[in-house]
Amino acid sequence: MCNDSIIKTIHSVHHHHGWDNAIEPAFLVERGQTLEFECLDSSGGQLNRSSSVADIPGLDFNKINPVTGPIYVDGAKPGDVLKLTIHEFKPSGFGWTANIPGFGLLADQFKNAALNVWSYDASTLAPAAFSGIAKVPLKPFAGTIGVAPAEKGSHSVVPPRRVGGNMDIRDLSAGTTLYLPIEVEGALFSIGDTHAAQGDGEVCGTAIESPMNVVVELDVVNNLKIDSPYFTTSGPVTRHLDSKGYQVTTGVAPDLMEGAKSAVSQMIDLLVAQHHMSPEQAYMLCSVCGDLRISEIVDMPNWVVSFYLPNVVFE
Amino acid sequence: MCNDSIIKTIHSVHHHHGWDNAIEPAFLVERGQTLEFECLDSSGGQLNRSSSVADIPGLDFNKINPVTGPIYVDGAKPGDVLKLTIHEFKPSGFGWTANIPGFGLLADQFKNAALNVWSYDASTLAPAAFSGIAKVPLKPFAGTIGVAPAEKGSHSVVPPRRVGGNMDIRDLSAGTTLYLPIEVEGALFSIGDTHAAQGDGEVCGTAIESPMNVVVELDVVNNLKIDSPYFTTSGPVTRHLDSKGYQVTTGVAPDLMEGAKSAVSQMIDLLVAQHHMSPEQAYMLCSVCGDLRISEIVDMPNWVVSFYLPNVVFE
Repeated sequence: MCNDSIIKTIHSVHHHHGWDNAIEPAFLVERGQTLEFECLDSSGGQLNRSSSVADIPGLDFNKINPVTGPIYVDGAKPGDVLKLTIHEFKPSGFGWTANIPGFGLLADQFKNAALNVWSYDASTLAPAAFSGIAKVPLKPFAGTIGVAPAEKGSHSVVPPRRVGGNMDIRDLSAGTTLYLPIEVEGALFSIGDTHAAQGDGEVCGTAIESPMNVVVELDVVNNLKIDSPYFTTSGPVTRHLDSKGYQVTTGVAPDLMEGAKSAVSQMIDLLVAQHHMSPEQAYMLCSVCGDLRISEIVDMPNWVVSFYLPNVVFE
Repeated sequence: MCNDSIIKTIHSVHHHHGWDNAIEPAFLVERGQTLEFECLDSSGGQLNRSSSVADIPGLDFNKINPVTGPIYVDGAKPGDVLKLTIHEFKPSGFGWTANIPGFGLLADQFKNAALNVWSYDASTLAPAAFSGIAKVPLKPFAGTIGVAPAEKGSHSVVPPRRVGGNMDIRDLSAGTTLYLPIEVEGALFSIGDTHAAQGDGEVCGTAIESPMNVVVELDVVNNLKIDSPYFTTSGPVTRHLDSKGYQVTTGVAPDLMEGAKSAVSQMIDLLVAQHHMSPEQAYMLCSVCGDLRISEIVDMPNWVVSFYLPNVVFE
């Protein structure tokens, strides 16, 4: 990716909370143009390198998960598909992971706030040290990528939708191409919630939340029928994690959510026993590097959800 | 794995249907001993190289999913954990994949029987040709691995349980170590339902169902606390599939099952459009090589389930 092709940087002053097709566009692009987006972290700057767990209860949720945009894409019409080529991330070197009470897969079990502040090498992206216990391979991506819904009014940024949004798909890293259904004229594209690393599931509710810039090429296609986000990767997606194999817990249950909770809860117990970390640390570690997979969804009435924790983090 | 250490082959004449702790053991082993199991395919031999789709409606479900065993492991007690080291698979070269009406993730959409008979090279395990459309990388494993439950009586082999059974976990391939909670004296271990390849989820309800022999070392540990099956892999688990990247559909929904159905259904539509295969062919191809992953399970109220179809099958 050559910086010369970036026609403009959209600074984070152009951020908004929630999705609303009445928000004034920050910029207009032609099809095929490339922009650089300056993205705030998902706390909107409320947490920083010197934050402590005492700062978690005071977080202002009205400032959570700002996205940079929206961008009006010339010629984009409802029914078309926005094609986003994700070229590059420019990470900041700072990140945080938290257990926010009331939020996360195991909110019932983890009622106390927890925070880990990360410092990583933004140039080498070497695995990031986690409290002297583990080293987590990094793979930056944007958790929230979306376009404005057709329905009027302001819609929460928290849930993802058919038009994208807070999808938290770990594999939307550099080199991927993402397709989003367009519902309004100009598409009205925004991006934010950048992460330095995350496992599939984002089980504790947060990843390595990290402000960074993202370089994205925007185009429109109209020969693709999709009902919800669709993407292609240019290569493997787990090789930063898989070299030393995995340990895997399973949840066997007639409900996928119940199975997922059981698998993650058991992995936390194992990690606490194996590595003498606190349950909160294990929960956060699971969130930034462990993967939830559906092993079996057909053997009625019980499904198997598996949680894969990569051994490489302890090497 | 040296064949010299295999103390006995348990032939498939020692097969049973369902789990029942009253079934007479086929053999008794000491801790640490290795057996070779001759496993029937999941039709119990009802389907063969010359079968056609016309044979599907006549399948006798009382003969489905036989497992070879049970093996009494000397010294194994309720509360202990059975440790299984999966050393080797000896595939047969024949396999089948079917859509069986009423079974599978999209049973509501796929009401007609379908069958694909596979012929693969059992010595090289080269990717297997699928109707001239695709080539599917092979990675043999046993879909059903379990021990007898404590509860008396005969329990269906179809659903997996905390003691294992029909887990259909794709990554239980050679080199993995599986741990199962023991509920009865001697553990009463059985194995079957061997597959030449499967994607995470086994979405159409069948994999490449293939008779083969499996070499397993049985041991007992009592310092591990697990509520359900747990395993470790000796290395990466998706490198047979991931080299050329993936195309990925997503299901965004407040229910994981609904999201999974949506993601798979959309992938089938794409494959039909891209490769001019029938929907039934696309469904079966998804089942033998596509992976269901939970991308996000915390952004209330919508979760994201993603379906990963590896590009390598079309190279």
